[in-house]
Amino acid sequence: MLPSALISPPATLAARYRQVRSATEALCAPLRPEDCVVQPVVDVSPPKWHMGHVTWFFEQFFLKDYLPGYQIFHPKYAYLFNSYYEGAGERVQRAYRGNMTRPSVQEVLEYRQYVDAHMARWLEAHPDPAPRARYILEIGLQHEEQHQELLHYDIKYILGHNPLFPAYREAEQPRLSGPAPAEMTFLEMEAGIYEIGHAGEGFCFDNELGRHRVFLEPYRVLDRLVTAGEYREFMEAGGYRDYRFWLEEGWKWVNMVQADAPKYWFPVEGEWQIFTLEGLRPLNPAEPVTHVNYYETQAFARWKGMRLPTEFEWEAACRRYAPEIPAAANFTDLGALHPIPRQSGDHQFFGDVWEWTQSAYLPYPRYHAEDSALGEYNGKFMVGQMVLRGGSCATPRGHIRATYRNFFHPHLQWLFSGFRLAADGLA
Amino acid sequence: MLPSALISPPATLAARYRQVRSATEALCAPLRPEDCVVQPVVDVSPPKWHMGHVTWFFEQFFLKDYLPGYQIFHPKYAYLFNSYYEGAGERVQRAYRGNMTRPSVQEVLEYRQYVDAHMARWLEAHPDPAPRARYILEIGLQHEEQHQELLHYDIKYILGHNPLFPAYREAEQPRLSGPAPAEMTFLEMEAGIYEIGHAGEGFCFDNELGRHRVFLEPYRVLDRLVTAGEYREFMEAGGYRDYRFWLEEGWKWVNMVQADAPKYWFPVEGEWQIFTLEGLRPLNPAEPVTHVNYYETQAFARWKGMRLPTEFEWEAACRRYAPEIPAAANFTDLGALHPIPRQSGDHQFFGDVWEWTQSAYLPYPRYHAEDSALGEYNGKFMVGQMVLRGGSCATPRGHIRATYRNFFHPHLQWLFSGFRLAADGLA
Amino acid sequence: MLPSALISPPATLAARYRQVRSATEALCAPLRPEDCVVQPVVDVSPPKWHMGHVTWFFEQFFLKDYLPGYQIFHPKYAYLFNSYYEGAGERVQRAYRGNMTRPSVQEVLEYRQYVDAHMARWLEAHPDPAPRARYILEIGLQHEEQHQELLHYDIKYILGHNPLFPAYREAEQPRLSGPAPAEMTFLEMEAGIYEIGHAGEGFCFDNELGRHRVFLEPYRVLDRLVTAGEYREFMEAGGYRDYRFWLEEGWKWVNMVQADAPKYWFPVEGEWQIFTLEGLRPLNPAEPVTHVNYYETQAFARWKGMRLPTEFEWEAACRRYAPEIPAAANFTDLGALHPIPRQSGDHQFFGDVWEWTQSAYLPYPRYHAEDSALGEYNGKFMVGQMVLRGGSCATPRGHIRATYRNFFHPHLQWLFSGFRLAADGLA
Amino acid sequence: MLPSALISPPATLAARYRQVRSATEALCAPLRPEDCVVQPVVDVSPPKWHMGHVTWFFEQFFLKDYLPGYQIFHPKYAYLFNSYYEGAGERVQRAYRGNMTRPSVQEVLEYRQYVDAHMARWLEAHPDPAPRARYILEIGLQHEEQHQELLHYDIKYILGHNPLFPAYREAEQPRLSGPAPAEMTFLEMEAGIYEIGHAGEGFCFDNELGRHRVFLEPYRVLDRLVTAGEYREFMEAGGYRDYRFWLEEGWKWVNMVQADAPKYWFPVEGEWQIFTLEGLRPLNPAEPVTHVNYYETQAFARWKGMRLPTEFEWEAACRRYAPEIPAAANFTDLGALHPIPRQSGDHQFFGDVWEWTQSAYLPYPRYHAEDSALGEYNGKFMVGQMVLRGGSCATPRGHIRATYRNFFHPHLQWLFSGFRLAADGLA
Repeated sequence: MLPSALISPPATLAARYRQVRSATEALCAPLRPEDCVVQPVVDVSPPKWHMGHVTWFFEQFFLKDYLPGYQIFHPKYAYLFNSYYEGAGERVQRAYRGNMTRPSVQEVLEYRQYVDAHMARWLEAHPDPAPRARYILEIGLQHEEQHQELLHYDIKYILGHNPLFPAYREAEQPRLSGPAPAEMTFLEMEAGIYEIGHAGEGFCFDNELGRHRVFLEPYRVLDRLVTAGEYREFMEAGGYRDYRFWLEEGWKWVNMVQADAPKYWFPVEGEWQIFTLEGLRPLNPAEPVTHVNYYETQAFARWKGMRLPTEFEWEAACRRYAPEIPAAANFTDLGALHPIPRQSGDHQFFGDVWEWTQSAYLPYPRYHAEDSALGEYNGKFMVGQMVLRGGSCATPRGHIRATYRNFFHPHLQWLFSGFRLAADGLA
Repeated sequence: MLPSALISPPATLAARYRQVRSATEALCAPLRPEDCVVQPVVDVSPPKWHMGHVTWFFEQFFLKDYLPGYQIFHPKYAYLFNSYYEGAGERVQRAYRGNMTRPSVQEVLEYRQYVDAHMARWLEAHPDPAPRARYILEIGLQHEEQHQELLHYDIKYILGHNPLFPAYREAEQPRLSGPAPAEMTFLEMEAGIYEIGHAGEGFCFDNELGRHRVFLEPYRVLDRLVTAGEYREFMEAGGYRDYRFWLEEGWKWVNMVQADAPKYWFPVEGEWQIFTLEGLRPLNPAEPVTHVNYYETQAFARWKGMRLPTEFEWEAACRRYAPEIPAAANFTDLGALHPIPRQSGDHQFFGDVWEWTQSAYLPYPRYHAEDSALGEYNGKFMVGQMVLRGGSCATPRGHIRATYRNFFHPHLQWLFSGFRLAADGLA
Repeated sequence: MLPSALISPPATLAARYRQVRSATEALCAPLRPEDCVVQPVVDVSPPKWHMGHVTWFFEQFFLKDYLPGYQIFHPKYAYLFNSYYEGAGERVQRAYRGNMTRPSVQEVLEYRQYVDAHMARWLEAHPDPAPRARYILEIGLQHEEQHQELLHYDIKYILGHNPLFPAYREAEQPRLSGPAPAEMTFLEMEAGIYEIGHAGEGFCFDNELGRHRVFLEPYRVLDRLVTAGEYREFMEAGGYRDYRFWLEEGWKWVNMVQADAPKYWFPVEGEWQIFTLEGLRPLNPAEPVTHVNYYETQAFARWKGMRLPTEFEWEAACRRYAPEIPAAANFTDLGALHPIPRQSGDHQFFGDVWEWTQSAYLPYPRYHAEDSALGEYNGKFMVGQMVLRGGSCATPRGHIRATYRNFFHPHLQWLFSGFRLAADGLA
Repeated sequence: MLPSALISPPATLAARYRQVRSATEALCAPLRPEDCVVQPVVDVSPPKWHMGHVTWFFEQFFLKDYLPGYQIFHPKYAYLFNSYYEGAGERVQRAYRGNMTRPSVQEVLEYRQYVDAHMARWLEAHPDPAPRARYILEIGLQHEEQHQELLHYDIKYILGHNPLFPAYREAEQPRLSGPAPAEMTFLEMEAGIYEIGHAGEGFCFDNELGRHRVFLEPYRVLDRLVTAGEYREFMEAGGYRDYRFWLEEGWKWVNMVQADAPKYWFPVEGEWQIFTLEGLRPLNPAEPVTHVNYYETQAFARWKGMRLPTEFEWEAACRRYAPEIPAAANFTDLGALHPIPRQSGDHQFFGDVWEWTQSAYLPYPRYHAEDSALGEYNGKFMVGQMVLRGGSCATPRGHIRATYRNFFHPHLQWLFSGFRLAADGLA
């Protein structure tokens, strides 16, 4: 039986389907066809691949099973747009996605329209779908929201590694500002048993289930995100040149890529400029640092004599100090597309940047991936990656929860990632 | 002093400039913007990079020197469009060309128009340019013709490695056909001293100069190109599975890439299909085999108990048996875009496919590269590559000569390459 | 102040020093000089490098500080024998260790004698060393014991990848045998708060400190190790050919190395033979499976519908069901040099094989690496590795504890690694 | 029918066999077992592999065919000691040779004795062998002499890349000295037809046959080798930092390996020291430069405004100016093991260093490799390598001829390689 937690309310589905699907297209609308094709590194997928892949997901996992007589749009598209589902057959090697100039962007949009029309027909005919159908639909929509987030990263990578530094959009609005914090204040958490994992009615992924108890020794966490200004102090103190702060794997990374700053920081005439989706602009020291990888957070924390919170510590503190997602939280609906300085009273648990935690991505007790191809969604990645929490400025607002577990390899910088510090004991 | 051989007649320059430049644009016109961006392997450059690079060549090597007050179009374009001229400054690493989505195709066309307008102004003002200017202009045009040829290879690679096998153009005309040759007939050449290298008034590259004498022992060469049907016999005889036919480096290549046929040959329901710029179609055994690398030619020749001609043997035989370039030779003006079966009486020295020779690419006596950046054009590649002769179906007719020395690394298959056999002694 | 837990009792030091040092030499005695030089993969170090490195450790971290006027044996040996201590200066790149034919084995033994003589002099003069000196000495000895374990792995690798399959020693004793277990029985653990980490007087590494409370939901663990026979069933059920059992990273590994069995399993005339330090012999299905990596344990567990215990679950169950290390536990003093079938009543928590756990190697609360070069010992490896527990047949008996945390990358097979299953809830 | 050129006179065979075989053992005698095992780069083979391989060659290609009832020494040795003969079955991957610690050096010497005993028996019983047997025997001996040369290179590489810089032998004799040449004097050769390739009775390899005519335009060659002092001038003029002197492939090599000097040159307190088989010593500017690769010779020559001779120019000049091999030529019998300054009147065509030529290694007219496994000896390497001429201080005297064609890849420095300059025309 499906856990009720996994199922969206039926009334919202058709509208939600249209909303999510059109958001993807709006996101890609400012791009030129040329921008939609390339794959500068293996982790970055071409925007048109994203647009096709999320569409194939509905075709493969929904329409083929639920819409009798459904004809797939093109016999080769499964090969082109399957990402990693072994259960769904052969596919283009990941590193070759960026060589596939066809189908063109226009043809991918036609594919989207074809699938959307069939989905609309089905949704109209089924105002109250059965739980399994509702579940798969919801997975498809959540999946597309995740790819919307990835699209922000990948578009930024494509534009930000071009010597012309083209902007994704013009600067639209006055920037939100705030004072650079003068010092570090910590939120305290006493020792005790805390409940971790999802409960209740809303949707969640299978990796959040298995709600269970953990014991936390007393600890404290920073009441906000680490800022770019604070991170720059670490750099100016020689942080990238002193092995003592670094994990061994991190030090190898520093030397291999000759790292000396977060991604998208460029020295211009003695000042740091950063590349944003609005182009190059001067660094704002009050804003949360972003595009740091796990190694960089560890080095900063060791330099400070502290550490990062575990995902359990993060979740418990978030529930205590941010029991509701603030209306002002910086998600995609805010339109900033970049982390913003802390607003008064906000602890920045939600939005702005995903927070690296000091927890490896591993299964919760009683975790069990389902046996279908959809079972490949989360479970098979549970080795070698670290957990991040809280969502970012590239996350759709409705997509996030306190229990949401994101995960990435520790060397990656291209996501909107940041961190907060933690320490043992109460102050 | 410039050798007169290197200089084009002045009267033709303005018209020729327009003709060459517009030919490049016509060649790219059938492409979609998406096709113009990618670089599936390091040897293949994005079509829009070619369009920009050949334009930068005129800006860098001509306009900056000859047009007073010339303003370059964009300060970063030299960085983006320099290929390998160390003397012309820093540039994008070759393997990253395919990550540069900007400038867009449209912006590259605007770059072309800007440069063309300035070139036109200069050409109008200088009806009779000095030899050095004429020489550089001609180099620029020859250079662009070479990139037109590469564009054919690269476009074919991009489309031919896509699972959708999109055609570059519709099949336009009835195919030229001809009977598959029944047997091998050889052209005989007696022992003696032959003159090798360019002489006379027309343009040539510096690597063809240094006309000199070579002594050739008696030999014979096939009176035509090896056909696809003959090559298929080699395959059916187990040619790709028997190490004895292969150079050691070739056998490593066979095993590394699991080679079992020329590039663009695909087994479809028990028959060989080949990908052409008009899409997939059945193999025509009467047409010259193409997209074979040097290793494959050596294996075939050893299987036959023969060898390839040296570039000297090729040139001497070409002068004897094809003193003029036949009007029916298969160059780009013929529009076939693919090698065609031998037409009666033609020895196929010109057009169809570049012929691998058994000569390494090395300097002729008295070879001297000029000291400017243009000196990097040919000389610095004189190690590790083999010479090919005669031009192909992707070569502009006026571009070729009996003395023309093309050169590629021995493992490459993506060019229109083929071969003829040779043997020692008279029959 | 040093935690008392880290310090050995002074009376034992001189005798213990001699015992540990001579054990290393005894271990290498059966090798020929040729065996002592090579490094077939980067993870395997040459035996003579191990012998030199552990000696350098005493020179670098003890004699230079504690023995006034000590002259180092050779000015280049620090460069040759430093492993990864950034704080101790430049060193040979790890992958080049196997190219260093000098110093010879004989010269390394002379280096050992030189250092041992100086250590003996110091130990004689200091019958009751100060805590810091005792601590560093003990670290040096524990360090050498760890390298004794690695020597077993590396010697086995060197001999076991040679087509001649030379034995490290002749089969000396009748093998211990036991019946293959008929079924799986589980040890039960109820929910509750458990204390994790080292307490008390004996030595431990810094990564075991920070004793803290964890809450464990009810679970059960297999009352023994998984056997070779059980693992063979997984193989015969197609375990290596079905992606559904594998982590994504594990499935990549299977395909990259074409894995179809644990390391050192060889099919010989339809039966599995395994390579041991006594050479090739038939597989004994009753013995614990070994030389499996983390991916393989995950695939087996998923095939069984179970999982592995976390390191916390392992430690709590070990304390409950094996509060003392059994006298019959299979450590180096037993001399088996290979895992042996379960003896009646033993739960196999100690010895035989290191048990992979489902825990990533991460710091305990209040973990803090010391600031000296010795601080590089454990802490800088806390990313990307998994924890193993319990020691193996290559571990010196006195070296192990219930709280001991070993750690390796998940793809590695060359250690004596195995596993036990776990499941959620009571039966 | 075998060409008579390929066959040694029968009377010398038994004595010559003993002489060649014992020379190999004498060459390895100063090594320790540890030195005999490793393979620091793929081009370097372990000395004990060489000793086994040349022995296997006699077993495989002679004893198995000619000695009735011959029992091979060990069934796995063919697998271990076959180098690249596809026709002789499977073998250890080349890059793994250095992981094979067994058989030990002692066991390899026993293998040698076993084969030698059987060879001696056969030679005694066949005082006048048939031509084919004599030919194969001679190939085996020539082959072993080639491996003697390689042993010098590989031993030097193994010792010269060790931070201890151990000497292969003590400095035995006063060094031969000579004045550094003041200027460059050239030997002149007029235009004409020259005969190239082997003629006459003595042994030669198949790649020297096919004696044929070449026409050479007038040229001149340096009357000696380029010296270390002259090469140092090139370095001091910034030769390694100026792309204009380099072939493109050479410039890539310079940047990839950060080249700034020939191999084995080390800056020590402001002076160049070089590593020789007698250890580190100051550079002697009068001696021929060695351990330069083809790229370096090209850069030097272009810096000088000259070029290298082709192999044909070299051979014709050698025949004219050094018709006999000088008794004082620096081969292994001289015992210098290093190039020595030019002695009065010697043109240094023979010995000291192999001279890179500006010729790619390609077949002569009428070249045909024999069809047996021995046909893999030379022919299959005829792509991508350059020809060197004249022998070196590591070549046995009797091994060399004016027509001898050695060949190596252009990036290699570990051989005793050097060069002389050439130029077009008479002075």
